[in-house]
Amino acid sequence: MESISVGLLGLGTVGSGVVKVIESHQDKLMHQIGCPVKIKKALVKEINKVRDVDIDTSILTLDPEEILLDPEIDIVVEVMGNIEETKEHLIKAITHKKHIVTANKDLMAVYGPELLTLASEHQCDLFYEASVAGGIPILRGLVDGLASDRITKMMGIVNGTTNFILTKMTKEGRSFDDVLSEAQALGFAEADPAADVGGLDSARKMAILSTLGFSMNIDLDDVKVKGITEVTEEDLQYAKQFGYIMKLIGYAHREGNRVEVSVEPTLLEESHPLSSVNDEYNAVYVYGEAVGETMFYGPGAGSLPTATAVVSDLVGVMKNMRLGVNGKSAVSPQFMKQLKEDDEIYSKHFLRLHVEDEVGVLSSITSVFSKNGASFEKVLQNPLGEEKRAEIVLVTHKTSLEGFERVLEELRDLKGVQFVKSTYRVEGGDA
Amino acid sequence: MESISVGLLGLGTVGSGVVKVIESHQDKLMHQIGCPVKIKKALVKEINKVRDVDIDTSILTLDPEEILLDPEIDIVVEVMGNIEETKEHLIKAITHKKHIVTANKDLMAVYGPELLTLASEHQCDLFYEASVAGGIPILRGLVDGLASDRITKMMGIVNGTTNFILTKMTKEGRSFDDVLSEAQALGFAEADPAADVGGLDSARKMAILSTLGFSMNIDLDDVKVKGITEVTEEDLQYAKQFGYIMKLIGYAHREGNRVEVSVEPTLLEESHPLSSVNDEYNAVYVYGEAVGETMFYGPGAGSLPTATAVVSDLVGVMKNMRLGVNGKSAVSPQFMKQLKEDDEIYSKHFLRLHVEDEVGVLSSITSVFSKNGASFEKVLQNPLGEEKRAEIVLVTHKTSLEGFERVLEELRDLKGVQFVKSTYRVEGGDA
Repeated sequence: MESISVGLLGLGTVGSGVVKVIESHQDKLMHQIGCPVKIKKALVKEINKVRDVDIDTSILTLDPEEILLDPEIDIVVEVMGNIEETKEHLIKAITHKKHIVTANKDLMAVYGPELLTLASEHQCDLFYEASVAGGIPILRGLVDGLASDRITKMMGIVNGTTNFILTKMTKEGRSFDDVLSEAQALGFAEADPAADVGGLDSARKMAILSTLGFSMNIDLDDVKVKGITEVTEEDLQYAKQFGYIMKLIGYAHREGNRVEVSVEPTLLEESHPLSSVNDEYNAVYVYGEAVGETMFYGPGAGSLPTATAVVSDLVGVMKNMRLGVNGKSAVSPQFMKQLKEDDEIYSKHFLRLHVEDEVGVLSSITSVFSKNGASFEKVLQNPLGEEKRAEIVLVTHKTSLEGFERVLEELRDLKGVQFVKSTYRVEGGDA
Repeated sequence: MESISVGLLGLGTVGSGVVKVIESHQDKLMHQIGCPVKIKKALVKEINKVRDVDIDTSILTLDPEEILLDPEIDIVVEVMGNIEETKEHLIKAITHKKHIVTANKDLMAVYGPELLTLASEHQCDLFYEASVAGGIPILRGLVDGLASDRITKMMGIVNGTTNFILTKMTKEGRSFDDVLSEAQALGFAEADPAADVGGLDSARKMAILSTLGFSMNIDLDDVKVKGITEVTEEDLQYAKQFGYIMKLIGYAHREGNRVEVSVEPTLLEESHPLSSVNDEYNAVYVYGEAVGETMFYGPGAGSLPTATAVVSDLVGVMKNMRLGVNGKSAVSPQFMKQLKEDDEIYSKHFLRLHVEDEVGVLSSITSVFSKNGASFEKVLQNPLGEEKRAEIVLVTHKTSLEGFERVLEELRDLKGVQFVKSTYRVEGGDA
């Protein structure tokens, strides 16, 4: 091979990073693959725009077909985002025998299995390491590094914006809205932060992670999602008193072949490895039957970190080209998906209630728990400033989600209970 | 392929784990490689010994040649330890066209480059993920996950015994000897702990890591080594007061093409990701020019975790067999090694002195520093119980190792200074 030609779909934050990494590390790439890597064309929305990367404008194009149909382009790197239109581009590229490297989690969470099958039918590689947790090589970790093990649990902090917000709220005692504004000003949160703070972005990544880790097709719709918009300073204060740290945790658990995948604000034991993952950093904790606890930590986003993952995937495709084995490394899912019901999902729960400060209230709350086969391991009662009201905060023993929901329903109707202020899942005390 | 035959050299802790992982995860292995994996023979020292794994004694042998020369054996898994004799076994296996998977860091740190070249000449794979940090897939992380990046720094907690000891000393205020005895009783330290507590085991792993991460042959002799046997409770107490955590850190740093590799007890800023790696856990922190900070965390030893790495390597060899590309994935080093001199090695240093408690001592110490172009950012003086003696503890600004050694030499001769009690490298405030 004289050189390998790459077509770039998109030249935004990640695309510019890809250009920079390919240029500045050309030496190392040459050494590994034995020939130069050249970006032959890049699809953009506007040719004459000021960009933060030096690029010859003659290779820019407004027409995707100049890349997708160019027989000289070997690999298409997709860093343009979007779902439906981009999917059509990739289908066209694959049917024209081009290998794909993508950073698009939105696309992979929804159409990943379909595109992977198509790629494999055309002996094309489709790599997507950058779609989950930016610069952290977690997908390789699952597929190659833990190839021999049976992964039973994954817990991920896979969204930098929400981790930044929760870290600041925790350390500085500030409100969600206040920190969100700062994050937007600093560029850690988008103008429309809904997909981040609502948990959807994390859910997409958990669908991808659990599909790979559990070797079964988990759809985005299978992931239960709750965001961090309702988290209050008071919740964080009580959490701290009980020895917990609040994180937005993507949780994927397999018992036998029954699985559960969720994203929700979760209270972690302070000693859990994920508890010290702060600011905009990401980490994925993986529990395997044989290996036990492992964790992969690093930057979850950003131009150069994400570009590193993209270009490392490019190296993988190019090594396969040299060996003539493209499209043969993907392994299709081994298992049929079986989702757990609420009565199979067990965890501890944190619960904060406002009650009338009268004799017997705590006792009648206790009765509701025991009637439903539940109990609590920690409880705290604080008088509220106002007359005859108090706050009760408790953490249950492990109980089924169904049982806990039943308790909540009865508590809401219980005489003396004014509001259920908040509830959170609690994790981390055991593997 | 009807089945793949494996010969096992060694059936101790890791070897038994390999048998268990292959048996209990046969389903997953089959799914990935398309045929069963069979252990055809295992080399042992004694046939009729009680073992903690169920194995047909008819496959056990005392004669290594029954494995090394058996034309039906495709892959040799080496988990017997030792260096010279084992090297001869592997050379024989490779020249008989067998692929190798080894967990032997002692061997790879010394003969890795030679064996890798031989394997490549014979179109054989030689994989050794298990040799560094047990169950953590760090070598793949460096070679594949960060393939496109230029790695400039690695810091590793790569010895579980010493991390267990330092964690206990820090948290419980106990002495080295006291905790070492407990670690031996619990099986976390060997009867002869010299290679662990003296730092040699970590140095072997750092030689392997830096060879791969920097793409140059780093020999074991290139690694400067200091163990933890001199670390005292007092050092740990002062470290804590200054906001540091003591860890035995393997440190590999590249600037331009000049490198430094060392193993020494190091004071880390509490906020550094490695500071919260406790007990017998291992972690490798990797800094890449583009990706920034990443960390890989997990169990560094143990039967099943190490076996996971071995069997995942086996899966890698078997996938390559299926594709017919064995022996083609190794990349030879890109750079000639250039080791830094002491005047190119910069860091902060912690220093503890006993002095006569007289007017002017601190001032004359300060003069020694400034005369040598050094200075300190933190200092603390404590009267000692005895008459007219005091302890001075300080942390320097970044200074060259050569400059700091000069300061130490002059301090030892300075009037009023009784002893230099301890010195440690300080890291973690910047990337």
